[in-house]
Amino acid sequence: MDGHPGTIALLTDFGVEDTYVGVMKAVIASRCDARIIDLSHAVPPQSILEAAYLLWTAYAFLPEGTVTVCVVDPGVGTERMPIAVRWPRGHFVGPDNGWLSYVIRDAHARAGAADDLGLPPEWQAVGLDNPNLWLHPTSNTFHGRDIFAPVAASLVSGVALEELGNPLSSLVVVDVPRATSAGDTVQGRVIHVDHFGNLITDIAEAHLPTRFTVSVGGGVIDGPAESYRSTQPLVALTGSGGLLEIAAPSGNASRLINVRAGDAVTVTRRGEVGDGSASG
Amino acid sequence: MDGHPGTIALLTDFGVEDTYVGVMKAVIASRCDARIIDLSHAVPPQSILEAAYLLWTAYAFLPEGTVTVCVVDPGVGTERMPIAVRWPRGHFVGPDNGWLSYVIRDAHARAGAADDLGLPPEWQAVGLDNPNLWLHPTSNTFHGRDIFAPVAASLVSGVALEELGNPLSSLVVVDVPRATSAGDTVQGRVIHVDHFGNLITDIAEAHLPTRFTVSVGGGVIDGPAESYRSTQPLVALTGSGGLLEIAAPSGNASRLINVRAGDAVTVTRRGEVGDGSASG
Amino acid sequence: MDGHPGTIALLTDFGVEDTYVGVMKAVIASRCDARIIDLSHAVPPQSILEAAYLLWTAYAFLPEGTVTVCVVDPGVGTERMPIAVRWPRGHFVGPDNGWLSYVIRDAHARAGAADDLGLPPEWQAVGLDNPNLWLHPTSNTFHGRDIFAPVAASLVSGVALEELGNPLSSLVVVDVPRATSAGDTVQGRVIHVDHFGNLITDIAEAHLPTRFTVSVGGGVIDGPAESYRSTQPLVALTGSGGLLEIAAPSGNASRLINVRAGDAVTVTRRGEVGDGSASG
Repeated sequence: MDGHPGTIALLTDFGVEDTYVGVMKAVIASRCDARIIDLSHAVPPQSILEAAYLLWTAYAFLPEGTVTVCVVDPGVGTERMPIAVRWPRGHFVGPDNGWLSYVIRDAHARAGAADDLGLPPEWQAVGLDNPNLWLHPTSNTFHGRDIFAPVAASLVSGVALEELGNPLSSLVVVDVPRATSAGDTVQGRVIHVDHFGNLITDIAEAHLPTRFTVSVGGGVIDGPAESYRSTQPLVALTGSGGLLEIAAPSGNASRLINVRAGDAVTVTRRGEVGDGSASG
Repeated sequence: MDGHPGTIALLTDFGVEDTYVGVMKAVIASRCDARIIDLSHAVPPQSILEAAYLLWTAYAFLPEGTVTVCVVDPGVGTERMPIAVRWPRGHFVGPDNGWLSYVIRDAHARAGAADDLGLPPEWQAVGLDNPNLWLHPTSNTFHGRDIFAPVAASLVSGVALEELGNPLSSLVVVDVPRATSAGDTVQGRVIHVDHFGNLITDIAEAHLPTRFTVSVGGGVIDGPAESYRSTQPLVALTGSGGLLEIAAPSGNASRLINVRAGDAVTVTRRGEVGDGSASG
Repeated sequence: MDGHPGTIALLTDFGVEDTYVGVMKAVIASRCDARIIDLSHAVPPQSILEAAYLLWTAYAFLPEGTVTVCVVDPGVGTERMPIAVRWPRGHFVGPDNGWLSYVIRDAHARAGAADDLGLPPEWQAVGLDNPNLWLHPTSNTFHGRDIFAPVAASLVSGVALEELGNPLSSLVVVDVPRATSAGDTVQGRVIHVDHFGNLITDIAEAHLPTRFTVSVGGGVIDGPAESYRSTQPLVALTGSGGLLEIAAPSGNASRLINVRAGDAVTVTRRGEVGDGSASG
């Protein structure tokens, strides 16, 4: 870490039209000298599931010790609990509403445990109920500024998790999409459409046959492709997160076949379906 | 400030499609090692009033000593004066066109003075007329790069305000919207629609009755709500800046009732109007 | 450089909806403490020519020693070569696909050489073929994360160019638009429409007559104007990059006359054409 005072990563649905993100950074900068990494501020408004997915694409690459703050918080000002979590590679701070679901699933899987409602091994969580470290007056509508930014600054500055609030034995987890296999067929769905219109699915590379056919929207695509370059209108390949992805070479697959997050994707072992003629 | 070399905050209407913001940061980074805070670069093109409002939402949270640069500058290259201002918590740099209006109003109010055309107490301003510190050649179309970024870097590096130009005794101020009260009615307007479609008004919490009804667009809303969560289609509550705000729980109020910045908002003490039946 | 560990500038077509930019920054931050400058992440998807232009508007302003990374990479995962370049003011890192074309043209011109296919004087380039410094596993779809970010961090940390791969004697260059002169007429085109709708052309100030008339779309404009302020619907002036630019005072020229990048622009010495009556 070459003497750097620490890193704070931010993930919000705040967009760029307002100063909401800037104000969080101002509060942080008033309290510590952390390096800031913007993961994204374009989470669709109030979409906890998208935030959970986006965090999952990034969290393993953050520097050791990073404090990651997520503010996608439709319940701000209600009884939903603000939380801070210590895990082996750093801290998480935000509302207790499910944005950690993919990361928790990974942690349970790595521990060889079936998913359960408890915390993964070596994780500690607290409910933020010590207002001494918050901004005052504390609003009911902007906990990113008044609670989460100051708490993240405290963690970067060395304040112990235990000083921030009382221990929690579990966190809110939302159902994340999971592809299912039956015989030679994998049934999944699109979980994210990226900036390029690429369709990212919940089908992990490990579940893909060596050669396969994908059906999504009206499209039937033989895979896997080696890269996005192709003379075909659509390609199917493993994307940078290890998930099956459908892309349109030099185009936008989502617009081309009118597919969105949530739509169904079917993968069949190649041979059963043929090479593009039909998919049932 | 834990030894940090200083902070520069940026507020522009430059958008993200070009390198305008990046080039300002490049000029700053070539001259000093300031920490940069982006307040917003999505001010509607040339909207000085929106810039003034957005600055107002953020300025009190910036670290002590911050140099805040605003470049919303429809008059770039004309006789409008580039300025730098020292105030008790740092510096402001930009064109003299009114973007400081809300902050100046606050400063006069805190000093217990009626608004006037002079500078608030403990403020000093200069017109930037010392080109020694600028970039050369100096363009007529990009003072953010050629004048404001270098001047901000100079201020962060310890150059005194007085070296940047000659003193000014007043600054351009634009009329900012102000709600008016008459009897039990407060008449205001929407001054900003945020990323979530929330309607932020010029009606301060201090002017709100304990229980009230808001009329805006075709909507009639009883308030105050405690949070954005509600089974009602619209809620009215005090937002994070201390102003009355109308929001659609898990929706977009601006789109729902087709209301935009500038539209009228009427608040009536509850009882006079009833609970949703009519508003006159 | 006042002891700063170094600067990395980023230019991509990654947009803001995903964590692609954030993940690159996370990889960089895990490996060094560089200061990051975002040039733009809104290059139109896969538009190498736009990336080349945008880099050209910014590169001369970056701090000495900056490592500039461009990821506009339609051929990611194919045989196109990842490269790193040392030039007198720093380094460039990215795919070998033409995004350096404007900068290379400038460098050849400064050296007094006609454009040719070789490297400009004092430039060294290598093909990145030393995977020791990359992220592993290395994906076929996200070299920004797996190759370019780690290589940039290595360069900032003092790793020599020669350790990154084998020397190249030339780089891929794409044709960049160039206005042509014939008699009193300059024929060019719009190469970029900026956030304000300003039409930036490939006609350099040096090629403009003292007084001239511009024809673009249906518009005929007498120039040069001194600034964007005017009572005319359109103005023609030299923009901040030294190129002829057409703007609509307090409006959007692109929308006003329905002109886009690639459209033709004709400049005629004033007098031959008259002042707005016709342009042939």
